[in-house]
Amino acid sequence: MLARTPKTLDALLRGLPDGWTLAHEGGETWSPFDVIGHLIHGERTDWMPRVRHILAHGESSPFEPFDRFAQLKASEGRALTDLLYELASLRAANLQELRGLALTDADLERRGRHPALGTVTLRQLLATWVAHDLDHVVQVARVMANQYADEVGPWRAYLRVISGTQG
Amino acid sequence: MLARTPKTLDALLRGLPDGWTLAHEGGETWSPFDVIGHLIHGERTDWMPRVRHILAHGESSPFEPFDRFAQLKASEGRALTDLLYELASLRAANLQELRGLALTDADLERRGRHPALGTVTLRQLLATWVAHDLDHVVQVARVMANQYADEVGPWRAYLRVISGTQG
Repeated sequence: MLARTPKTLDALLRGLPDGWTLAHEGGETWSPFDVIGHLIHGERTDWMPRVRHILAHGESSPFEPFDRFAQLKASEGRALTDLLYELASLRAANLQELRGLALTDADLERRGRHPALGTVTLRQLLATWVAHDLDHVVQVARVMANQYADEVGPWRAYLRVISGTQG
Repeated sequence: MLARTPKTLDALLRGLPDGWTLAHEGGETWSPFDVIGHLIHGERTDWMPRVRHILAHGESSPFEPFDRFAQLKASEGRALTDLLYELASLRAANLQELRGLALTDADLERRGRHPALGTVTLRQLLATWVAHDLDHVVQVARVMANQYADEVGPWRAYLRVISGTQG
């Protein structure tokens, strides 16, 4: 699953005009461009650093808190194509490192300490990495669909993502 | 946008075990497999047939109603890989036909009659095709993320797609 996310987002976004990739849902909400920056920041500072932290320190010290807004500065002025390439490259390197660890079932039960959530396991960390990816795929597709909220006219009633209902 | 959807879903789904592709959200909700079948049925019976219907008949006769559950029978026993291939192939053929129509701005304002929603324009039909794709990308990623609702442990609180909040 983790290897699929960069390809999925690349298929959805690469080469699209800014009208799609910089659009957001108003206020401080994120555009697809912001989301890719956020995923890059996670590859650099969150997922594998926390895997290493659990293996090295267990619960004895908490993880570094993750800055959810760091990408807003780090991505400034960059092209989405570059960000997509960087995400793919960082993810591939992280997955290579992860495979190299050859984690056992016992390793997956090792515990760490989240600065806000308390005790978590390595297994939960890896599951969260997957679910977090999917969460942001949902977000990117939803933000894009919402750009057509008016363009679809009367069909608005049938489109769950625009009408705000889940079905 | 319409050319991207088959590639996006292929990147997300091809080769995944059934545990991911046949999972759904309970009751009559759809799995990723069901969604691909639904998109195939739309390529065959909904989008381009309605484009042709507007160009040929305007508002004088309503569209054929779209059967939203047809794929549940049509996909039975088929492999997801085949369905993904069929979707890509039908979509490519439909987009080739659409380009061949060389629709003008005036054409996009032509009106048709939806059996339930009443008057709609060709422009709205095409926008809905795009938003409908994205709606189902949202759904597929959400259904998959929800398979990890328990596996993520305490992180559940931070994952909007699992906790059911939008952010």
